Amino acid sequence: MKVIVLGADGYLGWPTAMHLAARGHEVVAVDNYYKRRITHQENRPSLTEHMTHVERAKIFADDTGHSISTYALDCTEFKAMKEMIEQEEPDAIIHYAEQPSGPYSMRTYNNAKETLENNTGSTLALAWAVMEVDPSIHIVKLGTAGEYGTPNIDIEEGWLEIEHKGRKETRLFPREAGSFYHTTKILDTDILWFWVRVRGLRVTDLMQGPVYGMLTDEIRKNDRLGTTFFYDDIFGTVINRFCAQVLKGIPLTVYGKGKQVRGYLNLIDTLQCVQLAVENPAGQGELRIMNQYTEQFSVLEIAERVVDAAQAMGISDARYESIPNPRIEKEDHYYNMVLTELPKLGLKPNLLTRDVLAEMLERLSPLKDKINPEIVYPKVTWTK
Amino acid sequence: MKVIVLGADGYLGWPTAMHLAARGHEVVAVDNYYKRRITHQENRPSLTEHMTHVERAKIFADDTGHSISTYALDCTEFKAMKEMIEQEEPDAIIHYAEQPSGPYSMRTYNNAKETLENNTGSTLALAWAVMEVDPSIHIVKLGTAGEYGTPNIDIEEGWLEIEHKGRKETRLFPREAGSFYHTTKILDTDILWFWVRVRGLRVTDLMQGPVYGMLTDEIRKNDRLGTTFFYDDIFGTVINRFCAQVLKGIPLTVYGKGKQVRGYLNLIDTLQCVQLAVENPAGQGELRIMNQYTEQFSVLEIAERVVDAAQAMGISDARYESIPNPRIEKEDHYYNMVLTELPKLGLKPNLLTRDVLAEMLERLSPLKDKINPEIVYPKVTWTK
Repeated sequence: MKVIVLGADGYLGWPTAMHLAARGHEVVAVDNYYKRRITHQENRPSLTEHMTHVERAKIFADDTGHSISTYALDCTEFKAMKEMIEQEEPDAIIHYAEQPSGPYSMRTYNNAKETLENNTGSTLALAWAVMEVDPSIHIVKLGTAGEYGTPNIDIEEGWLEIEHKGRKETRLFPREAGSFYHTTKILDTDILWFWVRVRGLRVTDLMQGPVYGMLTDEIRKNDRLGTTFFYDDIFGTVINRFCAQVLKGIPLTVYGKGKQVRGYLNLIDTLQCVQLAVENPAGQGELRIMNQYTEQFSVLEIAERVVDAAQAMGISDARYESIPNPRIEKEDHYYNMVLTELPKLGLKPNLLTRDVLAEMLERLSPLKDKINPEIVYPKVTWTK
Repeated sequence: MKVIVLGADGYLGWPTAMHLAARGHEVVAVDNYYKRRITHQENRPSLTEHMTHVERAKIFADDTGHSISTYALDCTEFKAMKEMIEQEEPDAIIHYAEQPSGPYSMRTYNNAKETLENNTGSTLALAWAVMEVDPSIHIVKLGTAGEYGTPNIDIEEGWLEIEHKGRKETRLFPREAGSFYHTTKILDTDILWFWVRVRGLRVTDLMQGPVYGMLTDEIRKNDRLGTTFFYDDIFGTVINRFCAQVLKGIPLTVYGKGKQVRGYLNLIDTLQCVQLAVENPAGQGELRIMNQYTEQFSVLEIAERVVDAAQAMGISDARYESIPNPRIEKEDHYYNMVLTELPKLGLKPNLLTRDVLAEMLERLSPLKDKINPEIVYPKVTWTK
């Protein structure tokens, strides 16, 4: 199949592009380096060095013979998007081209506005371009499990069958997100669902939990094809941040009680899930929503596992500590996210074992000196 | 109380400004003439002439002694909004400053994008400005009953108590709108609900049905204070459009079967509701959602009432006809919108009687020659 990856310079986008290309798909990689700009501007560089997607595509082609076409293009620009899609005639478009940080979206009006405009703007431009060029193109949208928040009921896969005063209806699972960024992803889902209903688009919305890890089949073969690794307070996801903290010898920062539960997955399982979604497309006129994670953990459970793996490696002072929660969120709550669709399509989970953590820590170890302890303690608070 | 009205040059905004000023409130009227620009650009003028809010404020002050301050200001411009709010120190801000047409939002990518950016952009700028200036300012947001769509269950007032697999949760009533414009109003609600939760704003969201009419206490006293009256396919609401059609001697255009039911209200009841919301503010940290309508009708019932009123006035050829539905919507469905909160606050409905319709038709009659039959038949279709 021919697949366009939007946001292909990013943490997930670049590994996805290689993963699909290595498995026989024709891949087009698109990015405008927005994430590079904002991480640079915030002084929060990736721990790993990473060349642009254009440079990495060249190396990947030299190594493997699989060529990946590249574009440097702003996905909120409708005209450019439409022309690119017309030219490439893809079967599927994977949409990662969003500002993905909760703290970033909460900090200033400008950051909130930028997040809103970039995320809803890229989604609307994509939906409309596909409508005009060819509505049979399958849109695979990376949503986030964060759209659901932490309801006191089971989190179904996107939809809720409601029985109310003796009558029945099925609607989008009512969402309530924990950051402004996550709220913009709710808006994305609403926007796509509207155009699916009236213009018959085919869309898969993947409600993904926080991702950890950095190693994929392709990256293991050549370091220079590596992806970004953010461990800071703004762009770092929790497991990656904990790994950096434990290597640097600083306590892992658990926000509040640490009983916040989420569904997590390894980067290689994101690739698996996205591949399964692309190879088993949604029907025409269908918004297919799948929950995407492999294991549920509390933050405390994760902290304990990272400490355990570090101690086994001889980092004897590994420890975590609770710090005041910079976010407004429930710290002790019910959480049960249903997971049936992706396993049905064939997802084989790679779990967060001590070995997996040990390998991450070993790979990061040579970069230890580059870890900046000044950028891990949270500076953005939800209450201002 | 001191009240800022955003979108005060518009169909509802201007009558609201006068209504509140005449009842002892200090009013600030804000608009950037966006609606004038787009109705001009689409060649769909208001049937009534209407001076700018600045000009009408002068006449109103001369007539009544009640001064209304005015600003010409784009409500998506955060800095200008914040400065204005800082300067005026209002108790409440009524937010009408949105692109309100479904067909307009559906026609081209640029129209959809403009609707998205204007509506979510003004809402975000307002929320953030209030957060920074004074979170105790009460935001009264005009939402739309169209956010709910036509579910097969009762439409509760904003929230749904869910019982699912033996557990309970209360969340926003799951919304599913019928046009892209209405979808942007869902996004507005999500945006406001997020900032209410994390920053303790106080917000009232009024889920208003389609409004009809043109006469208020203030307008009856002086024609030159009149508001806009759109009867066209893009900006006209159905009852107003039917009145223009029947006067022009052309059949009322019922879309499809005409069994589409909605909750309607008279312009003077919008003023009543908004006044009740302002004078009985939501609590700090509360998103209060109230359904706002007085009567439910099917389109056919409305057509019959307009035909009946016209025939009683001697328009013997008054009739309606079904035309292909330009929209994608259910034409025969369950509809029951709960209405308890506004009556509890004191709403006294003004119903759609033959007299009310007759008075509208009489007031519009001298403008009959200006009605352009070319702009009433729908040209924008949902399917393209």
